[in-house]
Amino acid sequence: MSTAKRQMKLGAFFHPTGHHIAAWHHPGAQIDAGTNFAHYVEMTQMAEAAKFDLVFLADAVATRDGDLEGLSRWPQYMCFFDPVVLLSGLAAATNRIGLVATATTSYNEPYNLARKYASLDHLSGGRAGWNVVTSGNVSEAYNFGREAHYGHGERYQRASEFVDVVKGLWDSYDDDAFVRDRASGRYLLPEKLHFLDHHGEHFAVRGPLNIARPPQGYPVLFQASASDVGKDLAARIAEVLFTPLHDLERAQAFYRDMKAHAATFGRTADDLLVMPGLNVVVGTSRKEAEEKLDFLNRSIHPAVGKELLSNALGGIDLSEVDVDKPLPDHIIPAEQRRTNPRYAYLFKEKLTVRQMYQRYGAARGQRTVIGTPTEIADQMERWFVERGVDGFLVQPPVLPLGLREFIEMVVPELQDRGLFRTDYTGTTLREHLGLRRPAGIHAVH
Amino acid sequence: MSTAKRQMKLGAFFHPTGHHIAAWHHPGAQIDAGTNFAHYVEMTQMAEAAKFDLVFLADAVATRDGDLEGLSRWPQYMCFFDPVVLLSGLAAATNRIGLVATATTSYNEPYNLARKYASLDHLSGGRAGWNVVTSGNVSEAYNFGREAHYGHGERYQRASEFVDVVKGLWDSYDDDAFVRDRASGRYLLPEKLHFLDHHGEHFAVRGPLNIARPPQGYPVLFQASASDVGKDLAARIAEVLFTPLHDLERAQAFYRDMKAHAATFGRTADDLLVMPGLNVVVGTSRKEAEEKLDFLNRSIHPAVGKELLSNALGGIDLSEVDVDKPLPDHIIPAEQRRTNPRYAYLFKEKLTVRQMYQRYGAARGQRTVIGTPTEIADQMERWFVERGVDGFLVQPPVLPLGLREFIEMVVPELQDRGLFRTDYTGTTLREHLGLRRPAGIHAVH
Repeated sequence: MSTAKRQMKLGAFFHPTGHHIAAWHHPGAQIDAGTNFAHYVEMTQMAEAAKFDLVFLADAVATRDGDLEGLSRWPQYMCFFDPVVLLSGLAAATNRIGLVATATTSYNEPYNLARKYASLDHLSGGRAGWNVVTSGNVSEAYNFGREAHYGHGERYQRASEFVDVVKGLWDSYDDDAFVRDRASGRYLLPEKLHFLDHHGEHFAVRGPLNIARPPQGYPVLFQASASDVGKDLAARIAEVLFTPLHDLERAQAFYRDMKAHAATFGRTADDLLVMPGLNVVVGTSRKEAEEKLDFLNRSIHPAVGKELLSNALGGIDLSEVDVDKPLPDHIIPAEQRRTNPRYAYLFKEKLTVRQMYQRYGAARGQRTVIGTPTEIADQMERWFVERGVDGFLVQPPVLPLGLREFIEMVVPELQDRGLFRTDYTGTTLREHLGLRRPAGIHAVH
Repeated sequence: MSTAKRQMKLGAFFHPTGHHIAAWHHPGAQIDAGTNFAHYVEMTQMAEAAKFDLVFLADAVATRDGDLEGLSRWPQYMCFFDPVVLLSGLAAATNRIGLVATATTSYNEPYNLARKYASLDHLSGGRAGWNVVTSGNVSEAYNFGREAHYGHGERYQRASEFVDVVKGLWDSYDDDAFVRDRASGRYLLPEKLHFLDHHGEHFAVRGPLNIARPPQGYPVLFQASASDVGKDLAARIAEVLFTPLHDLERAQAFYRDMKAHAATFGRTADDLLVMPGLNVVVGTSRKEAEEKLDFLNRSIHPAVGKELLSNALGGIDLSEVDVDKPLPDHIIPAEQRRTNPRYAYLFKEKLTVRQMYQRYGAARGQRTVIGTPTEIADQMERWFVERGVDGFLVQPPVLPLGLREFIEMVVPELQDRGLFRTDYTGTTLREHLGLRRPAGIHAVH
């Protein structure tokens, strides 16, 4: 490790019109964001000029399922780019910023996925990352010849094997396999090409992959799991974790636990970064910031709010509830309110249904901070310095406006405090994040 | 149809270092082409400046299988970009030129493929095309949990159903589904969203696709089939055919047959274009062009030549043959020499094995023309005017050099004769090619 001051990592998490579910109502939102490439170019170039580590895209291989009355008023999950296609375009429009796309291990083939991300890593000069998900919605299963989603345990077993296959495919060629020597007539050295010959429980893949080893060795692996089985996978394979974290004490415990857990797989604390999502609502005054969030919250149609909350709470039926009264006790078991850490913050106070979906809808489960640039930088600094996190995936409520505001108002404050870089020192995503380049399974140790 | 003079369509067919199998030996080749994005940007911008209709990428979901002694000296099939990733990057670096990528129906999921191409079509403003293939090599099967490739008939049945599913998914939203009306709070009209609910022999896909209908309605469909079952599929679904054609008479018969065949599926002659590959070897004199091809042919290592020829002729064993003698009669049945139109041009004269692999290796089965710009333009004009073709996919033997030469020497000649455009008149690939925008399965007629 260098002796330079530890600095936080920042990612820009894109979600078409913004992370607030009513974002598209705001004049600062790009209203046709889901299919507007120029919108993403603008934001990515802005994030790169601000020296962000990366941009990040979520994904699902389906539209959101549910009541169309709500979904037709809430577009973010209904129409969006394939993230690898989008990032490949963005790679051509940028030079330094990392490019992280989500892809599911449940409805892809390892060979196709390994190729895509290796190609993106080559195309971008070593800036690709893969956010590993297992898919959570049955609507995705329906698009792939299945009538039900894989069970939770099976999903993670598949994911674990899938990631190993993908890494094995990325190692098909040694880093120095391509000699391209016209004099000898030898373009590649046959002994540096490896057949994977994988025969596992879920996949059989011979290889080799039809592309050279990625510039980063492996694209950087992201994960967000909060479940026990998810944490096991994360501790073994994830390099960046963005599990939702709502209070500092819990974050610190998670941070310590996950880094210790990673050590049980022979990894070091530096091999795994914690970067939860952070919904930043910033204003020149606290009042201005609050008014911004109020406008968005008031714009949530009750059909949208109920649809969102119903989905977040496991598909419970909210069609008959009065949004201005508290959630009736019989609708959701008290047990779940206490034990699911992901939604505990919704039950800490006695909220009306409207207040609940407003609280959840602002950042879809991730933490919200609101205030002046100084107040927000204070919060971010505290969590970072006190080892709750290594950085944040910034989730602006409205895009592109919220990203521009964060960059113009908060980033300079973080830079003035020495908490964030003022220029890139590396060229690859691994270099930005301070992650080692993996040697590969065939490397001689 | 307008009364303007009919003009030929031109595509630039990219193959990493060039289409000649020894291309990488030539100083005009980009030696690390397989993973060099800047190389493809340079070529695509060059083709766009020359007003080409499109660039085109082949694909396989495997490295080439076979003797590594040969393959290590012949890199084009061992290391290359995922074509959709590459074209997505190229879309960001260009404005008008069409972008056509190959993808197999045997080792993809229709939902994922429909998304990718719809995303590319949105990202590029309506410039995407899909070359539909069914895969021909068992090495691809091995990467997807199979020990054998699908049989020929089954491959085409799957392909036929696959294409229908993909089109159905592209029609998930009507063109005017997204109203984005802040006043009414309605972003999309629920009645303009369609569930596919496909339950077929090979695929079950509910839908809807999670992206708006592509700007072109459907990306343009390409196909190359020469077999009877392939021709049936092509006549039903293909909009551009690039089946190899080696003599004008046969080309004219194919052209007539396929357009008539398309009519049996309710399509018009204008709905299907014939654009075979054309390997252009151009020089300021015929001698210079011949010397260029000679250099490349002499650079083919016998291990490479035998590997290539063996594969082209169905995997026959050539390891023991003398390359400077004719192919022994017992090695390949006389029946196949006569009846397979794809390889008939290799058997018209009594060639040595070396001459055979040189002839085949120059363009991997497609036609070669060689000479001065005038001689080449004469050939192209004759085939076009006499209705053997609607255009060509130009396959330069060496890239980027051969593309630059074609653009600098041959394109002006074609333009002077009024045979090729001097500027774009449309913005989408369909508009360049003069193909109608399909209305979609839910359109009211």
